[in-house]
Parts: sequence; C-alpha cells; structure tokens
Amino acid sequence: MDPITIQPIGVVRTPYVEKYDAPRQPEVDDRVDQATIELFPHQNFEQALEDLAGFDRIWLITWFDRAGSWKPKILTPRDRTKRGVFATRSPHRPNPLGLTCVRLIDVKGLVIRVEGTDLLDGTPVLDIKPYLPYADAFTDVRAGWTDDLAATQYTVVIEPDIEAAASELASHARRVLAHDPFPHPYRRIKMLDDGSYELAMKEWRCFYHINGQVVTVTAIVLLP
Amino acid sequence: MDPITIQPIGVVRTPYVEKYDAPRQPEVDDRVDQATIELFPHQNFEQALEDLAGFDRIWLITWFDRAGSWKPKILTPRDRTKRGVFATRSPHRPNPLGLTCVRLIDVKGLVIRVEGTDLLDGTPVLDIKPYLPYADAFTDVRAGWTDDLAATQYTVVIEPDIEAAASELASHARRVLAHDPFPHPYRRIKMLDDGSYELAMKEWRCFYHINGQVVTVTAIVLLP
Repeated sequence: MDPITIQPIGVVRTPYVEKYDAPRQPEVDDRVDQATIELFPHQNFEQALEDLAGFDRIWLITWFDRAGSWKPKILTPRDRTKRGVFATRSPHRPNPLGLTCVRLIDVKGLVIRVEGTDLLDGTPVLDIKPYLPYADAFTDVRAGWTDDLAATQYTVVIEPDIEAAASELASHARRVLAHDPFPHPYRRIKMLDDGSYELAMKEWRCFYHINGQVVTVTAIVLLP
Repeated sequence: MDPITIQPIGVVRTPYVEKYDAPRQPEVDDRVDQATIELFPHQNFEQALEDLAGFDRIWLITWFDRAGSWKPKILTPRDRTKRGVFATRSPHRPNPLGLTCVRLIDVKGLVIRVEGTDLLDGTPVLDIKPYLPYADAFTDVRAGWTDDLAATQYTVVIEPDIEAAASELASHARRVLAHDPFPHPYRRIKMLDDGSYELAMKEWRCFYHINGQVVTVTAIVLLP
C-alpha cells in the first residue's frame, strides 16, 4: 500500500519541553496544565473551527515527533511485563500517532485553549474532532491488562519536617511513588543494601522504605 | 512544518463498498456489521498485537482514502446548517483521519475481528490503540450543536399492508426517516405538489406525509 503524506494543521504549545517534564497520566496527575493549539494561518482554518466552542471536550490527533523507533513489545511506566505496543498508548508505535481527549476552554481565531494534555511543546497536530459521548464514551468496559494495574494504589507518608523543608520535591515524590515505588528501568530508583530505597530527582535524593502498600519517606537530601 | 509520511499498517475489510452502503451512525443504526482488520505481514505486528484481546473496545485511526478535497464548512446528514469541519466527524477534513471506537471480538494472528464500524472496504489503517475508560470515557459532557439534533426524534408509522409487502424496504425507510424525513442534498427526498414527500430507494419509491413529529408512510411502490 502506498505511503500517505500528511501536512500538520498546527502545533501544540505546552510548558513541557523535555519528556520527563510531562505528566505521564494527565487524568491521575494533580497538576493542572494549560496548553494551546496554534493552527497555521492562510488555510481557512478559522472557518473550520466554527461551532467547536460548544463542545466540552475535543480529540487531538497528534504526531509524536520525538518518539524514535518503534518496538513490538513495550514496558509501560506502571507495569513489570512487556506488552504488545498496540495494547498500549506508548508513543513508540509503527506510526507514532497520539490520541488525546482534552478539555476545551475556548477558541479565539486560530488559537484553541485546552486543559489536560501531556504533550510536549512543539508537537505537530494533524486533526481536531469534537468529542461525541454517544460515539466515544463507553464506561464499564474491560480494559485488558490495565485493569489489574488500577487495583494497586500506594499510600505515601512523608515525615512532617521533611515535607515542610522541601514541599515541592515532596509533592513530586508523592506523585511518583504513589504510582509505583519500586525500581524500574524508566525510574531513577535503586534499592539500598538495607532494603530501603533511593529516588533521584535532579540533584536531590529521596530515601524511603516500603511496608506493604505504605511508602514512608524518611529523608530528602541535597547532594553536596 | 515538514510533511509527515505514514505507511499504513493494515486494511479494513467490511461489506461496504460504496459510500451509500455504509451506516451513517453505526451506534444508532440497527444493522449489526462485522468487519476485520488485516494487518500487513513481515513486520512483527503479531507481537505488537499481544495483550490486545483483553480489551472490550479498541480505537482505529484510519485514512479516508476516498474523501476527496476538504471544505472549511460542512453540511452533515442530520443538520440544516453548515458547521466548521473541525466541529464535525466529516471525512472531508484537511487530513482525512478517521477515528472509530469499535467492539473487539477477537484477535487471530494478524486478523482482528470487530463490530460497529461504518468504514468502507479497503480503508487503510494507520494505528490501533486500546480503549481506556479512565482516559477516553466522558459522559455528561456538552456536545455542542449536536445536542440540539439529538433532541429531535420522529415516530414512523407504516400502514400494515405496506409493511408486510415490503418489510425490508420498510425497515430502510423507517431508519432513514426516523433520523430526518425532510429533503436534504444528501438524501433522495423530494416534496410533492400536495405537500407530501417521496423517498427514492434504488428502483423503489416511498411516499409519506409528515405531521408534527410523526411520519406516516402511505405507499412503497416499485417503478415500472
């Protein structure tokens, strides 16, 4: 079959420049991120955007331009088993197409303000569609291997003085460790000789131990 | 921005060869349509499909290869006002990307059986993703101009002898007229001199009148 050529219609503008800046699961992450979609001029896209403002949510189809090569099996952030890439939302797919349902704030000329995206700044946008609940909203459906993951949630306790000293780092640690506090190739976590753990965050190190589903942070330390 | 080149990963196989064969709104239409997605061989796609079978629903991102040129404003089948194309699911968009959530039946090798698609036979498939309710299912959201359309539903009464004589045509008429019984450039409906209407279906003609929200079919006639 012949290849298809697509001309992007616009670009995503977000605060996320590097991959590690972006929230991995925007629906779970507690950061409120605002983003804009800037469509390209001189193509009548102003007209094509009319009537979009009445929708609460819209779909963005984007191109993961920094995804690199694809792999048939993928280790996703919360899992310990590799999964077929078509059973994941990983960007490392044969055609790195992104599909995100975002909250629509407003439309002004060629600029669309949205909330709830984890896209990197500069990501090309290929298409915009309205979210139609009758066609798109299916609750109570099995979500395959991800159903098992959703069942596990950890409680994170941070000692009060640690929390005060480094509240910003603490909130990062809380977010990361609540999802999965164990070492994993995608996380900067190592197990120490005494069975406790160390998480690296820039030049900071966060020390904690795990007891069942409870993760207790005992220290957040700045490297000398 | 540079154009993007996409190599399709497979092809849709459905009973719909021509545009008028396909159900316009698969979720409302009462036909049960089965389709298969055939992925192309020798690319490790068998591995990439592993773990997909546990999902009830999957997304297909496709390419409307027969859509023709795009238009900034579109008249959709149930509407009387042109809408900005990005506020519609029309195929006549700058990048004719299709987005469909289908019911997954099974996966065997490179063949995926699904239900609930209105895609034409031979449509190129660009990507397959699992349906994740936490990320994709939003009920109770405003759906812009389509909310007004959904409020209007017509009751169709077919005279008993007509129904018996032509039950298949009657069910087609019931389906088409319940959505919108008025003349429209996309439907083969005309108003007659006496204020009643005629719907053309292949070599058949269906005559009816409209009284408020009730459409009464008085005759289904085979052309000589």
